[in-house]
Amino acid sequence: MLQKIFLLGLFLGSAFGISDATLIKKAKNAGLKPIPKSQKQINKLINNPKNRLTKAKVELGKKLFFDPRLSKSGLISCNTCHNLAIGGVDGVSVAIGHKWAANPHHLNSPTVYNSVFNDVQFWDGRSKDLEDQAMGPIEALPEMAAPKELVEARINSIAEYVDEFRRVYGKKVKVDFALIASTIATFERTLVTPSRYDAFLNGKKNALSKKEKMGLSLFIDKGCVSCHSGYGLGGQMHVFNHDDYKGKGDFRGDKDSLVKAGILRNIASTAPYFHDGKVWELENAVWQMGKLQLGLDLKQDEVEKITAFLHSLSGKMPKITYPILPRSAKDTPKPDAN
Amino acid sequence: MLQKIFLLGLFLGSAFGISDATLIKKAKNAGLKPIPKSQKQINKLINNPKNRLTKAKVELGKKLFFDPRLSKSGLISCNTCHNLAIGGVDGVSVAIGHKWAANPHHLNSPTVYNSVFNDVQFWDGRSKDLEDQAMGPIEALPEMAAPKELVEARINSIAEYVDEFRRVYGKKVKVDFALIASTIATFERTLVTPSRYDAFLNGKKNALSKKEKMGLSLFIDKGCVSCHSGYGLGGQMHVFNHDDYKGKGDFRGDKDSLVKAGILRNIASTAPYFHDGKVWELENAVWQMGKLQLGLDLKQDEVEKITAFLHSLSGKMPKITYPILPRSAKDTPKPDAN
Repeated sequence: MLQKIFLLGLFLGSAFGISDATLIKKAKNAGLKPIPKSQKQINKLINNPKNRLTKAKVELGKKLFFDPRLSKSGLISCNTCHNLAIGGVDGVSVAIGHKWAANPHHLNSPTVYNSVFNDVQFWDGRSKDLEDQAMGPIEALPEMAAPKELVEARINSIAEYVDEFRRVYGKKVKVDFALIASTIATFERTLVTPSRYDAFLNGKKNALSKKEKMGLSLFIDKGCVSCHSGYGLGGQMHVFNHDDYKGKGDFRGDKDSLVKAGILRNIASTAPYFHDGKVWELENAVWQMGKLQLGLDLKQDEVEKITAFLHSLSGKMPKITYPILPRSAKDTPKPDAN
Repeated sequence: MLQKIFLLGLFLGSAFGISDATLIKKAKNAGLKPIPKSQKQINKLINNPKNRLTKAKVELGKKLFFDPRLSKSGLISCNTCHNLAIGGVDGVSVAIGHKWAANPHHLNSPTVYNSVFNDVQFWDGRSKDLEDQAMGPIEALPEMAAPKELVEARINSIAEYVDEFRRVYGKKVKVDFALIASTIATFERTLVTPSRYDAFLNGKKNALSKKEKMGLSLFIDKGCVSCHSGYGLGGQMHVFNHDDYKGKGDFRGDKDSLVKAGILRNIASTAPYFHDGKVWELENAVWQMGKLQLGLDLKQDEVEKITAFLHSLSGKMPKITYPILPRSAKDTPKPDAN
């Protein structure tokens, strides 16, 4: 009788043959890491010791993130391509920037949500952190197209901005391009989105459905986790099968042909997929990655379970009050759409 | 002695020869109307009986206002040209839309803040209200370039949006283009920004400085108020001196050459000025309008006082939580940047 109760207990505690505790252990052993429960722990994780998080700095960074005057035209902000309303992306295949130019390598805008968990930034991993990354698109010709001197002149011409920089960094601060970018990065660091998946890995066993748990297990067993692990389920540089990939554009990764694996958090909201944004359906993306990167022909029910699991990565978005930006001054360099 | 105290009192109660009470009376007689103090009175003022304001409708309207999927490209939302972070405008001379096309008549985007107070909408006044206006830019080729069928297909493909329309309008609602636009209009109606000017007209005598009061008095005496009156200090159709205006583009007003006078609320934040956005400095705009429309050569100190008054129209912006939009579905028509 005792044995029967024990077996029943095991059965109830398990979704499909392995217990929740075993699945959690298996996930962690495979390199999957949950966003911690407490804000204090999260703050520790997202902080950059060289660019310490403060409330005032994050607030200033938010203003800059939403400020279209950081672009040459005055029309494109960081939020244009990393739109926080729609998953931190632009929802289009290829990024469109200044003068409606498409990214010349047909690269898709990656999400800014949870980008703090990327080991490196950009698809070719050329930036080591968000502080460095944030400078790139502002200056890039087909993106915001603003030379750093222009950005510095715009911000420094606006007394209210300069005052806010002084309140954050001290009275003697020099508001230069790198500081503007690193301030934006501070805001971006806060854009983490804990989900039911984290609750599960943190021990809340009923946070995921049976199907999602089966998907998580498959995600590990099939090897998806070999590229998509860590806090972001992605964000590290990996070998990519360029030879067999029928994509758009000429992107071939970094000097070693490595490509940054995309973050899978909120993946259900960040279509289209892959570095060239060629695939719109998540199931299709799962199957194609299995084929291309793992040499697998995933069965329909396997794709469905993995996809169900991926949906559990849709997290709680931070509440953001839309900023009211300080107005331009007489000597603020004018927008230039050309 | 009593007489002396009385005279002193008159002097203290007056900025420059007329008492605050007289100035308030003079302003009201000239057609200037303060935004009321209480939210209940404001709600009465901004409500459209045919499109009743409800909290849920405003919230849905806000989502649509910020949703770039209302444009053909998926990149341009109402907020792109009427950016609530920078005065409800785009801050550029001529509106830039789909495929980076400039408005063919070199028209400047007017502010959406307080646009509920416009008698009519658009520079040529061709729309009678915001419900009608909101349809225009969505379909216009050089703006959002989305045929109404595309907008309807996009929104109706997203179950979460349809559910929200049902919660707002009832289960049998048909989510068509006009309803989408009028829902946006509901949100726009709430974008009113009471300022110190309203506090003054509502009786708080120290809400304006002496210089601002002198500016208000000049604003009335010089005749600015003949076009810029009502709640918005503008928003009505008026004769415009096209013959002497050296502007940009071919805009000549409505069929009678009338032009909608711009709203002056938050004018300090909505440069560049005039229907063609040709003037960047507020003082310059004041002087030019005096010259062109009133035949006056305003003196420097008059311009400065009027400008000081105009700054008092910078109001308190409503606090807006940036929306998280429902994700697109498999059958949501794809963005098209071409």
